Amino acid sequence: MEINEAVSGSSSFHVMNGAGNLMDFLDEPFPDVGTYEDFHTIDWLREKSRDTDRHRKITSKSKESIWELIKSLLDAWSGWVVMLLIGLLSGTLAGVIDLAVDWMTDLKEGVCLSAFWYSHEQCCWTSNETTFDDRDKCPQWQKWAELMTGHAEGAGAYVLNYFLYVLWALLFSFLAVSLVRVFAPYACGSGIPEIKTILSGFIIRGYLGKWTLLIKTVTLVLAVSSGLSLGKEGPLVHVACCCGNLFCSLFSKYSKNEGKRREVLSAAAAAGVSVAFGAPIGGVLFSLEEVSYYFPLKTLWRSFFAALVAAFTLRSINPFGNSRLVLFYVEYHTPWYMAELVPFILLGVFGGLWGTLFIRANIAWCRRRKTTQLGKYPVLEVIAVTGITAVLAYPNPYTRRSTSELISELFNDCGALESSQLCDYINNPNMSRPVDDIPDRPAGPGVYNALWQLALALIFKIVITIFTFGMKIPSGLFIPSMAVGAIAGRIVGIAVEQMAYHHHDWIIFKNWCRPGADCVTPGLYAMVGAAACLGGVTRMTVSLVVIMFELTGGLEYIVPLMAAAVTSKWVADAFGKEGIYESHIQLNGYPYLDVRDEFTHRTLATDVMRPRRNDPPLAVLTQDSTTVEDVETLIKDTDYNGFPVVVSRESERLIGFVQRRDLTLAISMFNARQKQDGVVSSSVVYFTEDAPQLPASNPQPLKLRRILNLSPFTVTDHTPMETVVDIFRKLGLRQCLVTRSGRLLGIITKKDVLRHMAQMMNQDPESIMFN
Amino acid sequence: MEINEAVSGSSSFHVMNGAGNLMDFLDEPFPDVGTYEDFHTIDWLREKSRDTDRHRKITSKSKESIWELIKSLLDAWSGWVVMLLIGLLSGTLAGVIDLAVDWMTDLKEGVCLSAFWYSHEQCCWTSNETTFDDRDKCPQWQKWAELMTGHAEGAGAYVLNYFLYVLWALLFSFLAVSLVRVFAPYACGSGIPEIKTILSGFIIRGYLGKWTLLIKTVTLVLAVSSGLSLGKEGPLVHVACCCGNLFCSLFSKYSKNEGKRREVLSAAAAAGVSVAFGAPIGGVLFSLEEVSYYFPLKTLWRSFFAALVAAFTLRSINPFGNSRLVLFYVEYHTPWYMAELVPFILLGVFGGLWGTLFIRANIAWCRRRKTTQLGKYPVLEVIAVTGITAVLAYPNPYTRRSTSELISELFNDCGALESSQLCDYINNPNMSRPVDDIPDRPAGPGVYNALWQLALALIFKIVITIFTFGMKIPSGLFIPSMAVGAIAGRIVGIAVEQMAYHHHDWIIFKNWCRPGADCVTPGLYAMVGAAACLGGVTRMTVSLVVIMFELTGGLEYIVPLMAAAVTSKWVADAFGKEGIYESHIQLNGYPYLDVRDEFTHRTLATDVMRPRRNDPPLAVLTQDSTTVEDVETLIKDTDYNGFPVVVSRESERLIGFVQRRDLTLAISMFNARQKQDGVVSSSVVYFTEDAPQLPASNPQPLKLRRILNLSPFTVTDHTPMETVVDIFRKLGLRQCLVTRSGRLLGIITKKDVLRHMAQMMNQDPESIMFN
Repeated sequence: MEINEAVSGSSSFHVMNGAGNLMDFLDEPFPDVGTYEDFHTIDWLREKSRDTDRHRKITSKSKESIWELIKSLLDAWSGWVVMLLIGLLSGTLAGVIDLAVDWMTDLKEGVCLSAFWYSHEQCCWTSNETTFDDRDKCPQWQKWAELMTGHAEGAGAYVLNYFLYVLWALLFSFLAVSLVRVFAPYACGSGIPEIKTILSGFIIRGYLGKWTLLIKTVTLVLAVSSGLSLGKEGPLVHVACCCGNLFCSLFSKYSKNEGKRREVLSAAAAAGVSVAFGAPIGGVLFSLEEVSYYFPLKTLWRSFFAALVAAFTLRSINPFGNSRLVLFYVEYHTPWYMAELVPFILLGVFGGLWGTLFIRANIAWCRRRKTTQLGKYPVLEVIAVTGITAVLAYPNPYTRRSTSELISELFNDCGALESSQLCDYINNPNMSRPVDDIPDRPAGPGVYNALWQLALALIFKIVITIFTFGMKIPSGLFIPSMAVGAIAGRIVGIAVEQMAYHHHDWIIFKNWCRPGADCVTPGLYAMVGAAACLGGVTRMTVSLVVIMFELTGGLEYIVPLMAAAVTSKWVADAFGKEGIYESHIQLNGYPYLDVRDEFTHRTLATDVMRPRRNDPPLAVLTQDSTTVEDVETLIKDTDYNGFPVVVSRESERLIGFVQRRDLTLAISMFNARQKQDGVVSSSVVYFTEDAPQLPASNPQPLKLRRILNLSPFTVTDHTPMETVVDIFRKLGLRQCLVTRSGRLLGIITKKDVLRHMAQMMNQDPESIMFN
Repeated sequence: MEINEAVSGSSSFHVMNGAGNLMDFLDEPFPDVGTYEDFHTIDWLREKSRDTDRHRKITSKSKESIWELIKSLLDAWSGWVVMLLIGLLSGTLAGVIDLAVDWMTDLKEGVCLSAFWYSHEQCCWTSNETTFDDRDKCPQWQKWAELMTGHAEGAGAYVLNYFLYVLWALLFSFLAVSLVRVFAPYACGSGIPEIKTILSGFIIRGYLGKWTLLIKTVTLVLAVSSGLSLGKEGPLVHVACCCGNLFCSLFSKYSKNEGKRREVLSAAAAAGVSVAFGAPIGGVLFSLEEVSYYFPLKTLWRSFFAALVAAFTLRSINPFGNSRLVLFYVEYHTPWYMAELVPFILLGVFGGLWGTLFIRANIAWCRRRKTTQLGKYPVLEVIAVTGITAVLAYPNPYTRRSTSELISELFNDCGALESSQLCDYINNPNMSRPVDDIPDRPAGPGVYNALWQLALALIFKIVITIFTFGMKIPSGLFIPSMAVGAIAGRIVGIAVEQMAYHHHDWIIFKNWCRPGADCVTPGLYAMVGAAACLGGVTRMTVSLVVIMFELTGGLEYIVPLMAAAVTSKWVADAFGKEGIYESHIQLNGYPYLDVRDEFTHRTLATDVMRPRRNDPPLAVLTQDSTTVEDVETLIKDTDYNGFPVVVSRESERLIGFVQRRDLTLAISMFNARQKQDGVVSSSVVYFTEDAPQLPASNPQPLKLRRILNLSPFTVTDHTPMETVVDIFRKLGLRQCLVTRSGRLLGIITKKDVLRHMAQMMNQDPESIMFN
């Protein structure tokens, strides 16, 4: 059973010919035929064909008995079941992570006396003694200094709190990096570059395994709580994909087919973003635009389902106590004005520049880490960066708190009840205080103070994020990027607001900003800035705007967001086409064929194929004149992943392609029992339909047509490379043979294509490392 | 210039070889080489390759001078400019259509005395004499009977109004069908099946032309105003695509490349749905899910831009006076309960059944129209259906008004100020009337009356829509489908509401419906029903839910909508996989290769290729032994679209493929001036790189390598058809050659693939009519 399924993959093309010369050895368990090695590229066409075979088998069996019919129905529904499970688990994990981060972030500052597992907010909400106005202060919540010395105020208490804050941060990050180092090295980073590569058809065993899931979840909480400048959004996508992979193993439909598995993973990525931002539609579009490679309509529907289930699971856990999915959900009610597009576009330019700066600096630093001594001390590095972050962050109230809280405050419009420093406006004493629609007012000293602190926080975040992203702990970069943009946006917003208030007779303000009107919403600027900076780093557009649109809950602000996102993309693209994920993929040398890169050079297949001019001739097998010994020598002497089979070396007419892995397995199996079959080293290997009947005394022929792919993909040597690139992309090929007038000339692998593309872009072709 | 661009398409593969034997005749204008004939399939790979050539040329030229640099920048930006123009024009047209329909629908009932170009609503809004409560009645608006006889009430007035209503309806529909017949036969129908086919790579000249645009816009207004059971949403997509095609002609990048043109059209379709439903994101997803074939990321971004511009243009025109994009925008505030999922899923089942019934009945009727005498009298048919519709519709208030108004009323929640019959509930006299959050109340006589009328309207709509869709006038089916669903949903909603009110102690209601609470929102049921019916007919899922979500403006109702949409799709799919658009495509025999059909049969390329076993051998050309006369005979005797070129008839080794169109043009051009070139009928046609130098007395050779495609697509005869289908789909091929061990065996065209698929599904393969 097992073997039949595995073998039919590589030889599904042949099964249909009804050839009867099935070798008996193929009937026995032989599990590895048709699978892939680690760090190799899959062949999408072959996977698809294997799945169709499987499907056909189930359909024909389903007519035999009721039980088989039920099994076939279960099989048909397994996709939706997997989606449901992914949604439930990733929603739950996201909720747990949110709650844990909340608690541990507050633990750095103090503890709840009534129940130590309460976060600051929960502690004070459950206390009945507080009024609405100072819900942040309640007797049950005590800072460490207060608890240990009894003094809540004073320099001594401040220093003690400061010291303990840094200590907790160091402890959390040390735990995080150690867990990653010891148990799951793949749990580090954001994971999105690797997931993009995996989805494009690459095998990285263990990257989406159970251990990675467990350790990533735990260390993500630790890393975020330690106060480092990183977010949980990217890692949540990784966590959701691990869930997807986990549930794939429940169904052989997905666990045994790398192509089908990737459909599930695409949907899981959508669920991850859905819970990270509370944006199910945005999540689906993120998966479509940013991470997925092969995204058929069926996957679109399923992704949507998974994203919805995940969002609703998270909502029922309600980690933020506001029945919203994210901390920074906002609802604005004031309109925006045409003239405001100028500052919005300027924010877009800022976002593009930040994106370029971040990508260049971060990649340079990561390359340094890879190539110098620095990379050998990941624990020390994390400890050092955490120490610096904590020491510098504590004195500034905007960097001391968690980044999502910061973003939430920056996005918020100043209501009448807002007590934050950013809302310290001078109120007109003649005016009653309506809840909504407060007119623009002059800024008070608190706002100016906040502006200074925000400016310092901006510089701090910009610098520290560059060094943080890429360390050996889970680290997302959506939240830090959004924070940078939100700070810049809020500063610009307040500046525009004050300018409009003090100079409402200027011609640019005259038309839309009467005195006493609420014309500028600084929170909207923060949101536009956040979108611009996120766009500059990741180069998302549609999904970014949709995520932001789901955060604001209104179509009104699509134009500002779109203007900023598109400007930011254009500015950043002017300096370099690659976003942060593509840059990291390149840095790691993964074989990723970007859908977005247009290949516009005038090269032909003949320029790319191997063997090159001075190379030894192409290693081929002949259909009826190669001996077992020849095959063994060929396998030993070369490291190609497969060999073309030709009619004869003279005519060079192609008849098929055989995978190295299958060939090795077949030969080693024969070697193991050569005696009983009469096959010896001098036996001839036959790839033809019929092998000659030889007298028993002669070495018996070895018939291997079963492992021969009779429909290898070919192009002519005159085919332009743009077409070849297109074919590799769209069909997800692993290799392609090059012919001229029916003669085999050479072979082009995905690696060759990528190396050629790198060369054409004046990059080092040796940077593409894997097959 | 012109010729170079045109020719380089078909021979782009060759240009790169640096072959110097450019024929001088190719330097002169020869505009048709490389284009397609009407009702033929395009070759996506070839179009893409032509565009890359063009792009390369512009890039290399841009380094020569400032002017060329500016031209290249303009070229790079032309995509966005086209999107902006499409957005502006389609938004404007949608606004104008909305205003005109509004006015003309009301014209059937009466006229505004203060200004005849005002619709009923505008007439009464501008009048100062009305109070808020009876804004429908104002002295300026007079029904026809009142205007003509002075009597507003009474049987005489009713009959006169009835008569004039029918008369106006007949006039409008007669005008519509006549305009379509005389000026633009392509303006009829919804257009979406044809647009799907065109986007998949088919040529229908004039289908998206200027005349079609103009006539479709005008006749759409007439058709909708005539009161027929049709909507404007599908035709709006057609109108937007016509706009897209119009603006394509401004830029040679798009007008000369059928592939690039289709990218613009995909975005235009998104803009069309965006204005039809006021749902920009839904529009993009509709284009992606429902109509587009090739949808790269670049198109995603551009579609989004076009959809946004269109939506904002429409919003600034503000045709409904409510600063919303559609008449039936709603905002609900009450939550839904788990138990309500049962009626929602039942509505989904109803939607699926309605979809199946509608598709079967409508296709049967359309087939009858095609095959019998019926099809010869389209004007009479339209007049008859309009007459029946108007006569039956007038007595029932729910069918008399326009369908969008009906949907709008059905979607609406009964507020305190609502005066409609559907909101005639018995109020609790002890209760003050809050504006929001009215508890469930017992239904009054008006509601029961409305239920009867709605039931009749439901039956009427179901029957009449089947006969309306497919007549020779513009007719969308979104609105009638939604109306059917909304009526059914509202009826179910009221039933559930009354049951919950009268039996709130039943166990199913106990948990969530206390007396005095507002637990059931009948309007939400109407919306869920509308989604279910629309989903049953079109088989949309994600885009449908997103459109509905943009109409309700809240994530809260995604689960009910999703449940209904998915149920409806499953139920309808159980009876037949094809939606209404695919069924119409099939009915018309267009060569459409659906991305969603999975090909699971065990056939091989060899079973599908031509020549079949008993056919004459494949018509081929040889590279250096065919004479001009042979070629002419071959062209005359066969009607193939192209011919493979082989080394020799004996070896059958393939070297290239030549298009019939290009060959005919080349030969006819040589014939026109054979004397001066020394080429006569017995001249040998050379496809090789070099032709032999013959003495001047011999017939001069004819070198045609320029028109030879040196990289034809090949598969082996063992390739399973599922792979071949996949290749045709993903690469957008027109034909593919079949080889075995380098020998040419046959050819598979898109038509062959489609016919084979039809045969495998037990359909008539002859139904696929075009190449």
